Amino acid sequence: MSHIQGVLKPKKTQLIEVAQSIKPWIHRTPVVRSRFLNELSGADLYFKCEQLQRMGAFKMRGAVSALSVLSDEQRAQGVVTHSSGNFGQAVALAAKLMGIKAYVVMPQGTPKVKRDAVLGYGAEVTDCAPNLAAREQATQEIIQRTGATALHPSNAMPVILGNATATMELIEEVPDLNGVIAPVGGGGLLAGTALATAYFGDNCLCWGAEPSAVDDAYRSLKMGSIQTNEDPKTIADGLKTQLGSVNFPIIQKGVSAIYCVEESEIVAAMRLLWERTKMVVEPSSAVVLAAVLKYPQEFSEKKIGLILSGGNVDLGQLPF
Amino acid sequence: MSHIQGVLKPKKTQLIEVAQSIKPWIHRTPVVRSRFLNELSGADLYFKCEQLQRMGAFKMRGAVSALSVLSDEQRAQGVVTHSSGNFGQAVALAAKLMGIKAYVVMPQGTPKVKRDAVLGYGAEVTDCAPNLAAREQATQEIIQRTGATALHPSNAMPVILGNATATMELIEEVPDLNGVIAPVGGGGLLAGTALATAYFGDNCLCWGAEPSAVDDAYRSLKMGSIQTNEDPKTIADGLKTQLGSVNFPIIQKGVSAIYCVEESEIVAAMRLLWERTKMVVEPSSAVVLAAVLKYPQEFSEKKIGLILSGGNVDLGQLPF
Repeated sequence: MSHIQGVLKPKKTQLIEVAQSIKPWIHRTPVVRSRFLNELSGADLYFKCEQLQRMGAFKMRGAVSALSVLSDEQRAQGVVTHSSGNFGQAVALAAKLMGIKAYVVMPQGTPKVKRDAVLGYGAEVTDCAPNLAAREQATQEIIQRTGATALHPSNAMPVILGNATATMELIEEVPDLNGVIAPVGGGGLLAGTALATAYFGDNCLCWGAEPSAVDDAYRSLKMGSIQTNEDPKTIADGLKTQLGSVNFPIIQKGVSAIYCVEESEIVAAMRLLWERTKMVVEPSSAVVLAAVLKYPQEFSEKKIGLILSGGNVDLGQLPF
Repeated sequence: MSHIQGVLKPKKTQLIEVAQSIKPWIHRTPVVRSRFLNELSGADLYFKCEQLQRMGAFKMRGAVSALSVLSDEQRAQGVVTHSSGNFGQAVALAAKLMGIKAYVVMPQGTPKVKRDAVLGYGAEVTDCAPNLAAREQATQEIIQRTGATALHPSNAMPVILGNATATMELIEEVPDLNGVIAPVGGGGLLAGTALATAYFGDNCLCWGAEPSAVDDAYRSLKMGSIQTNEDPKTIADGLKTQLGSVNFPIIQKGVSAIYCVEESEIVAAMRLLWERTKMVVEPSSAVVLAAVLKYPQEFSEKKIGLILSGGNVDLGQLPF
């Protein structure tokens, strides 16, 4: 996608620098294939296993990247984020490793396994009502009390650049991919994937996959302006987040299409991944396989990278 | 354990030959570690991931090994086995790959995912009542009708030698293990593990792990003769099988101890493995971690290999 490189804001050198700086704190995750899923999809699938990333999700990459650009004064006062799960865990672990105090605001109803993990990493957890206003208010209170720096889970350039490193590794291992598909919630992973495919792929497309129930990114791309979700309810709890203003222009330039899938298709794809690859992935990860299976006319006969975003599932709340 | 090598029947060269002959048909499975589980156990744990073996269990090794020693005439008439799951799948797949007809007798109540897989590999399935007499009768009928050769899932030397190759690979990768722990049902995996640790380990012990509900191997080792289970009921459905007469003498010579665990401890260990390593393993696999966590006085401070036997779980029947 060399024609879009000129209009992308972050430069290739920035991606390379971020990849170098976060390397000591993250895992290089494996790329897995499945004979069965290749036959089922008619495509050649390469799963990038971010469920095996530290704390169980790609969010670790963005969190480490965001902490790496803090000033000494900012590091001394700590960081705060509000998150229904994975980014909260990621900030908690990254901050622990880097010796920075972390405050995490979590809405009631967050899967217990995610809340326990954040506490386990030594962060201070503040509970709040499960809506955006309550989350932001709780975050503001912590900022006023402590002077902590707020970190957005997806809509910030250091986070996007950190997320891009998953696809950089994938392309390094499989250089001739026809495209990479990533789930889209807030858009931080998809924007990072778009940057990495544009700069490091060899005519490598970037696609998004999204639950139909929260199709704000799909509609935003179609309308040319950011759309919202009325009532965000999906089993893919990591993808409920509103598409962000920093991510959207990158997605507009670098993403060929976003594919929507139904809840039942997400559950079926998740079950296939568990049964056939023996990997525990969360519903948000299954969305990309669901899209590839739903639209064979777009994906069959192609060599495709699929970003499995994470594996933090509450085993007490499984859909099967 | 050089002192026991002299009294073991199969020789080291036999193990090396079998490892060579089955290599083209099996996967070399990865060895995985977990920082969290190391801290929890106080030991240094190396999980040999046979859930990532072809058809999802170590049984593939024994099945390929058993088919490899058939005469041309035997190959022409096919093979038959009765199995509640993994060995049936393994024979079905191995036979398909090697161009041999397979008949699999399966008791009613076998997890659907295992039955579907056997059919998917092209084997002929015969259903029978869920008791040993019915299984053996159905098997005899097939032998009389077709001339097929019967394969025992665990109590046969070619199967034991095939199973041993998992531990041979593990020791090749981690040569200084203090011991390897494997689950015990019929005893074919544990006997193979005992041979491999004795011949290839460097003062490497071999331990068994067994559900208390079906502790025939534990009692057999203690009494010095094969004991039976009254009413074999455990969530570890792969371990209900009666300890076999070919396996027992090898286990007597090569196994230091067998550790028993309760059903709740198996479920808790399985949940830990799923949540922390993101790997789908079946209850029989979790038995080894349950034992290591239950007996820290035996295992802490040691470098331990754990054979995760398989990952074929019916996701519709989970215990959490």
